[in-house]
Amino acid sequence: MNSRKDSTYLRAAIQLARERMIAGHGGPFGAVIVFEGEIISEGWNQVTSTNDPTAHAEVVAIRAAAARLGRFSLKGCTLYTSCEPCPMCLAATYWARIDRLVYGATRADAAGIGFDNEALYQEMNLPIRERSLPMEQMLHSEAVEVFEAWRIKADKIAY
Amino acid sequence: MNSRKDSTYLRAAIQLARERMIAGHGGPFGAVIVFEGEIISEGWNQVTSTNDPTAHAEVVAIRAAAARLGRFSLKGCTLYTSCEPCPMCLAATYWARIDRLVYGATRADAAGIGFDNEALYQEMNLPIRERSLPMEQMLHSEAVEVFEAWRIKADKIAY
Repeated sequence: MNSRKDSTYLRAAIQLARERMIAGHGGPFGAVIVFEGEIISEGWNQVTSTNDPTAHAEVVAIRAAAARLGRFSLKGCTLYTSCEPCPMCLAATYWARIDRLVYGATRADAAGIGFDNEALYQEMNLPIRERSLPMEQMLHSEAVEVFEAWRIKADKIAY
Repeated sequence: MNSRKDSTYLRAAIQLARERMIAGHGGPFGAVIVFEGEIISEGWNQVTSTNDPTAHAEVVAIRAAAARLGRFSLKGCTLYTSCEPCPMCLAATYWARIDRLVYGATRADAAGIGFDNEALYQEMNLPIRERSLPMEQMLHSEAVEVFEAWRIKADKIAY
């Protein structure tokens, strides 16, 4: 991929961020996904307008691209996003098997306008008992029985 | 919350994991969200059956709970999930402002059946240049201009 094409696609993501934020859809974030030289999906933040805390630009774009291609793997795709992804969106990018990610603003820039992705990255990395979110483990053997049922399932589809 | 009630709700999540996995919806993971003593949403893994790489049990349950309550914050809710969440689902739990999380199996158990959440947690914590996902930054000033437009937007809804 040459950087001129990268600039074009990333500008499309930044433009989406601006337009949809001004229109009141949500936070100032946009994303596009490119497959074989074509933009196959667009995403923009819609958390507050759709009451969906997972509707970040990248997650919206990933869902739309997978629907468009009719498969749960986005292998061969590049994600262009106006800002470095938060941990949710970065992990979604890995789960989607996206090849490559190009971004504009950084997590530090996002923190500067009140989206503290850096703090969330740090929280993810803490031992469970030190996190601000209380987490408790129980019923271990019952839960693991289901995993054993999956392990021996003959017709499972791995992902 | 007493632990007997916790067991009841977590068992419901584990039961969903088992039933929907056997029915072929996706991986062996289930979740329920409880608000004011009532299960307000259910989720189960639907990655392969809906071609949505973000359709993990917890994300599905979070979306459904927010739709049910008609708000993007799940403050006051507890998430019960059959397995310790992956980084995507854990970050979604933070974004949703969920109060508390109860889980059954651990990330090590998940790794044992081929869902390597531990590796993904480690990947998230690496410096950008050391990750297996290639990431590039460009157009910084253009991207940051949109953040400045957000900063001065008079009618924005924070989240």
